[in-house]
Amino acid sequence: MPQGSRPVVLLFDVNETLLDLAPLEESIDEVLLENGASRLWFTTLLQYSLVLTVGGKYESFVDVGAATLMMLARNREVVLSPEQARQALEPMLKLAPHHDVLDALARLKRAGFRMASLSNSSIDACKSQLEHAGLASMFERQLSVESVAKYKPHCEVYQWAAREMKVSEQDCMLVAAHAWDVAGAAWAGMQTAFIERKGNQPFSLALPPSVCASDLHNLADQLAA
Amino acid sequence: MPQGSRPVVLLFDVNETLLDLAPLEESIDEVLLENGASRLWFTTLLQYSLVLTVGGKYESFVDVGAATLMMLARNREVVLSPEQARQALEPMLKLAPHHDVLDALARLKRAGFRMASLSNSSIDACKSQLEHAGLASMFERQLSVESVAKYKPHCEVYQWAAREMKVSEQDCMLVAAHAWDVAGAAWAGMQTAFIERKGNQPFSLALPPSVCASDLHNLADQLAA
Repeated sequence: MPQGSRPVVLLFDVNETLLDLAPLEESIDEVLLENGASRLWFTTLLQYSLVLTVGGKYESFVDVGAATLMMLARNREVVLSPEQARQALEPMLKLAPHHDVLDALARLKRAGFRMASLSNSSIDACKSQLEHAGLASMFERQLSVESVAKYKPHCEVYQWAAREMKVSEQDCMLVAAHAWDVAGAAWAGMQTAFIERKGNQPFSLALPPSVCASDLHNLADQLAA
Repeated sequence: MPQGSRPVVLLFDVNETLLDLAPLEESIDEVLLENGASRLWFTTLLQYSLVLTVGGKYESFVDVGAATLMMLARNREVVLSPEQARQALEPMLKLAPHHDVLDALARLKRAGFRMASLSNSSIDACKSQLEHAGLASMFERQLSVESVAKYKPHCEVYQWAAREMKVSEQDCMLVAAHAWDVAGAAWAGMQTAFIERKGNQPFSLALPPSVCASDLHNLADQLAA
């Protein structure tokens, strides 16, 4: 184990950390008529989820996703109806887990960690996603920012999640492939694990993650050793 | 005049609304080895400015810009030193105004509006930017989020700006080319003008802007008529 005491609870981000976004990215690229445009969309979606949060507002992740997709489409002279935008997002509910996920979660569970998911997706969407991916049984709780009506990485989300799990922030480790998620959890007092999925890099203005891991097997090697 | 009473104070966003980002975009595209990659960088910069804000942290806009540029560069197998990243951002301090800006601001000033800038750039950076662009004398005040240590569109920024100008939020109109800025100002109780600069679209989950204008001349036509 690296710095800090062994965490009691592992909180897993879902989209991209556990689930492979590739089919969603294909769907978005197709609508935006450009390979790789989905990366700009996903970043815009994350930006606007926080735009709402700092404005004291909340709309579901899929609604923010559809609204931002319509904006980017109009910049490309593509006019999307709200229905077409939502259709392009449908693959989000049927994503498969990355190859390392199922076995590694089982190993971590056997090693005695309490495990929960903590997602920006709505309560219903997250439930569908984890059921479809065959991961639902791995988690003691499926937590969503919808309960707080603020998006990650708002510090209150992590503080709420720790309270829900009945442990202190220091006893939680947030596991995510996103530098912004890891940054926010660390600022809120949690231990953190940064999973180095393709296309994601650490943020140099954040606290260093407690653990960096190439994938969840590597995380299990480091935590359960 | 459209809905609402005539605003007493016009608050102008600076980057992209008044100043043409083209030379900065060229510099960033060059570093990221891809035409148009600067759009992903600018969105990532805005996302991470809010990541800091919701985490209760603050770093200057140029520092967040350099950190996010380094992340995107690493995703493209380009390793940038912090100095190289800052160098790529240097054109930001020497941007020219869009062609419509100088005349239109003079018209609005003659029409009796009190005018101030309200930027995500730091106090010093904003001062340099407006001096270099020949716009400094147009504004009664140059306001920066640095004074609040929270980024736009956090509602406290607009509330603070109204207090600084000694008027109510309802007597201010925020003028910006960015849907997120207009959204936040409207949620904070301000009147808003959305300037339709290329590559920017309204956000369908926001309140509708009080005014939409194709450029600042068109805004002056609508406000000073």
